[in-house]
Amino acid sequence: MGIRKKLHSTVVTALLLLLAAAASLADSHSDPLPSWSEGKTKQAIVGFVEKITRDGSPDFVPQDQRIATFDNDGNLWAEQPVYFQLIYALDQVRKMAPQHPEWKTQEPFASILKGDTEKVMASGKEGLMKILAATHANMTAEKFQSDVAAWLKTARHPKTNRPYNEMVYQPMLELLDYLRAKGFKTFIVSGGGVDFMRVFAEQTYGIPPDQVVGSSIKAKYEIRDGKPVIVKLPEINLIDDKEGKPVGIHQYIGQRPIFASGNSDGDYQMLEWTTAGDGARFGLLLHHTDGKREWAYDRDSHIGKLDKGLNDAGKKGWTVIDMKNDWKVVFPFEKP
Amino acid sequence: MGIRKKLHSTVVTALLLLLAAAASLADSHSDPLPSWSEGKTKQAIVGFVEKITRDGSPDFVPQDQRIATFDNDGNLWAEQPVYFQLIYALDQVRKMAPQHPEWKTQEPFASILKGDTEKVMASGKEGLMKILAATHANMTAEKFQSDVAAWLKTARHPKTNRPYNEMVYQPMLELLDYLRAKGFKTFIVSGGGVDFMRVFAEQTYGIPPDQVVGSSIKAKYEIRDGKPVIVKLPEINLIDDKEGKPVGIHQYIGQRPIFASGNSDGDYQMLEWTTAGDGARFGLLLHHTDGKREWAYDRDSHIGKLDKGLNDAGKKGWTVIDMKNDWKVVFPFEKP
Repeated sequence: MGIRKKLHSTVVTALLLLLAAAASLADSHSDPLPSWSEGKTKQAIVGFVEKITRDGSPDFVPQDQRIATFDNDGNLWAEQPVYFQLIYALDQVRKMAPQHPEWKTQEPFASILKGDTEKVMASGKEGLMKILAATHANMTAEKFQSDVAAWLKTARHPKTNRPYNEMVYQPMLELLDYLRAKGFKTFIVSGGGVDFMRVFAEQTYGIPPDQVVGSSIKAKYEIRDGKPVIVKLPEINLIDDKEGKPVGIHQYIGQRPIFASGNSDGDYQMLEWTTAGDGARFGLLLHHTDGKREWAYDRDSHIGKLDKGLNDAGKKGWTVIDMKNDWKVVFPFEKP
Repeated sequence: MGIRKKLHSTVVTALLLLLAAAASLADSHSDPLPSWSEGKTKQAIVGFVEKITRDGSPDFVPQDQRIATFDNDGNLWAEQPVYFQLIYALDQVRKMAPQHPEWKTQEPFASILKGDTEKVMASGKEGLMKILAATHANMTAEKFQSDVAAWLKTARHPKTNRPYNEMVYQPMLELLDYLRAKGFKTFIVSGGGVDFMRVFAEQTYGIPPDQVVGSSIKAKYEIRDGKPVIVKLPEINLIDDKEGKPVGIHQYIGQRPIFASGNSDGDYQMLEWTTAGDGARFGLLLHHTDGKREWAYDRDSHIGKLDKGLNDAGKKGWTVIDMKNDWKVVFPFEKP
């Protein structure tokens, strides 16, 4: 190494040290989770993060193993009155209806167009696959992406009249930022469609497309009019829910998380898989207890049912967020 | 913001600026690709990277879109005399043979144990699936991972007598580092097995497990003796080769790369998909022309056949590396 290079390297090192010192000083004076009430939930999160990041701690975890996974529906954004992606699908059916006169007499499309949600639901898995095929498949990935982006710009939530990607939880945005600042790589692992979530995950959560794991349909590559395209096929590839979550984590992330956050029994296996690993682990369950600012639901809910998770959280050592008491703010638009 | 916080923030900003200046000064004096000969291949790479990273350049690409994908076999590490993963599978069959007396009379195992490689190859896809099932499936992901790690420690390449993960290309290691220093996220997109590559990709290439895309078999989640495990199943999930590469990129990465690097016709569609996108794009093909330091093969090779890619590179605007002339060093252990 030449003298000039050595000098540069020394200067850079010195500056890095200074910077680290300044950053840690600044750090120690600001609360990274201001929307979380002081109490045992916040303490448990911060306590875990501090013990696994502190140099020399017996629980220290190297940065490349700091993997955190988050469910999306009902965990990063709301999921009531029904999953937002289902609302998208129904909106698309209505939008596409003029080009499909045959839908007037074909189920489940006829019931969607009549607004008979109960009959749509009664069409079961077969009906859902038809809706999926019509609104999510048989089109290029590019077309699907631009359709979802257009919908997010104009669609509004029936209760709050806000765009769906504003129906996200402020405390969870802070938690994502906090973990990343502590060297974690944050992933979504959701039953929702991966291509759907990738449209907004980076802008909304700071999670890039390749760190989104979700349910997916198959795809094929082909040349159309001389241009290569990816075409989405009406065939299930992965259902990223329940036992599918650890499988999705294995396939897409390739290592076991040390931190997992979910809100329903669909997340049970993800938390189980995460917290059964060696060393310090953290399982977090969001309990929807706030019927006023959000929705209150758990054991008997058709959406986001949380029953087994509530029963076993104590035994498994998982931390349960009581939304009503643990969160000072729910949605970003409520912030003072 | 309090005065104290403001002060910290100013100090941090000043230090960041200083640091950036120092780093760029250091940068401008060192060659990031020392093992690449001066010439039009190196110029094309550096020219591309500079034009897409220079502020105000008409070709500027924001950092979150700087996705680079690299094939592995014959591109980051060697693939002769046969794919290293096949050598692993055959070694495992020999290692497991004492527990499987029935293999003495069952093909393709009998031929493997007799060392009759030609007869093994003649067993075709059916034979290969049997080898795959015996050596890659019906075991936990953890067991597979530790088997591969143990093999990498002891197995040696028949020609160089080096561990297989030392049979990597020094110029490609430099290229990976260079791209990352310029804000790229680097991925492997290979026909090789994803779980196999993830064992060594981080240590060898600086590519973490979640940035490795490859061929895969299905998996399931189950509880064994009270402990959750991922079990690998003898059933193909994704063949990440040819048309499968853009599909794998779509499923795992979720956005189109701007830089793709490969060496065989199995990479054709990945380069085609990458370079057909809007804006500045880069396609790179490694041509194995060095029979002395490495191997010389292309159009007629059974391994890493490169025919269509060579024909179309000019028309497609892809840069072709002439290994013999463009690389001063091939393997890290040759470095002076």
